Amino acid sequence: MDFWISIGSTYSYLTVMRIEQAATDAGVALRWRPFNVRDIMVSQNNIPFRDKPVKTAYMWRDMERRAMTHGLPISVPAPYPLTYLPLANQVALVGLREGWGVDYITQTYKRWFVDGEPAGAEPNLSASLSALGVDAPAAIAAAHSDEVVDLLAAQTQIAMDIGVFGSPSFVIGPEVFWGDDRLEDALAWAKTRA
Amino acid sequence: MDFWISIGSTYSYLTVMRIEQAATDAGVALRWRPFNVRDIMVSQNNIPFRDKPVKTAYMWRDMERRAMTHGLPISVPAPYPLTYLPLANQVALVGLREGWGVDYITQTYKRWFVDGEPAGAEPNLSASLSALGVDAPAAIAAAHSDEVVDLLAAQTQIAMDIGVFGSPSFVIGPEVFWGDDRLEDALAWAKTRA
Repeated sequence: MDFWISIGSTYSYLTVMRIEQAATDAGVALRWRPFNVRDIMVSQNNIPFRDKPVKTAYMWRDMERRAMTHGLPISVPAPYPLTYLPLANQVALVGLREGWGVDYITQTYKRWFVDGEPAGAEPNLSASLSALGVDAPAAIAAAHSDEVVDLLAAQTQIAMDIGVFGSPSFVIGPEVFWGDDRLEDALAWAKTRA
Repeated sequence: MDFWISIGSTYSYLTVMRIEQAATDAGVALRWRPFNVRDIMVSQNNIPFRDKPVKTAYMWRDMERRAMTHGLPISVPAPYPLTYLPLANQVALVGLREGWGVDYITQTYKRWFVDGEPAGAEPNLSASLSALGVDAPAAIAAAHSDEVVDLLAAQTQIAMDIGVFGSPSFVIGPEVFWGDDRLEDALAWAKTRA
């Protein structure tokens, strides 16, 4: 099952913190696929929270309750939106290539949603990498390379082409499931199909 | 638990068809509260589907899968948006006062989502009422009365004042749960609180 994840999405925190265990329990193999959800949402005129204070306030309370249900720590509202969403995801692409991508995404989300440090920016970025024993300056330099910038754009185009319009999304063949609250449905679908 | 329902919402079909049984199973008392979700969404600049073809296509497929999970018949896409959303809900208010409101909402949603007849318009309106043994012309005339028009506006204002911004919503004290996929969470919350 492809897990399309864009660091920058709020609800994806809930997914990042539990999807590995949930997929293991369901016996479903996962592939993490970072992309730039903001580019897709802007291009599709899909702006869920900006200038929508009532819906935004609801989102924080809903996330808080869902975190409670899942036994996850959370401090809301977290800083939002992220200024450096592309960089946060470019680092993730470097990490997935080098084997520390999943741990980085998890670390950076924890610092964002528990400690209140925006992902993609300092001190979150270097601290998340250092905690994994990764050379932070080297990883960040690689993330800024044209190659990785282009890779994020290419991955985002693939996401858009297959109908992904939000994060988190779970894709099994032609089926797209969107939202942390569809994780269980998606795993069940993947399991049935396997 | 207050069930804020606006005939005109797509996902509310899934809720309308199963909430009475789910609430009974959970031992939670329900109060159905029709309102005009469109007025709130327009006033909050919260337009989820218009000019968003990708998200709209997803919504239909997601509803189809969720209906399958719940064992509910569905034919998508259903006619959307509804032209006569206010009238559909004004009839519901008349019905709740006269004791046939829940059955009418259920009937009109079935005709909308199974038979493809838009709610709030003919033939759906009269057929739904007649199926319940209700005098359709009299009920529709009552629904057009200034009193009922004002009642829908007043109920919509209450919904907005307590933080309801979409349908279906479930309200327990200060807690608002939004979306068919929060029905179980809301019932669990209501049960714990009771």
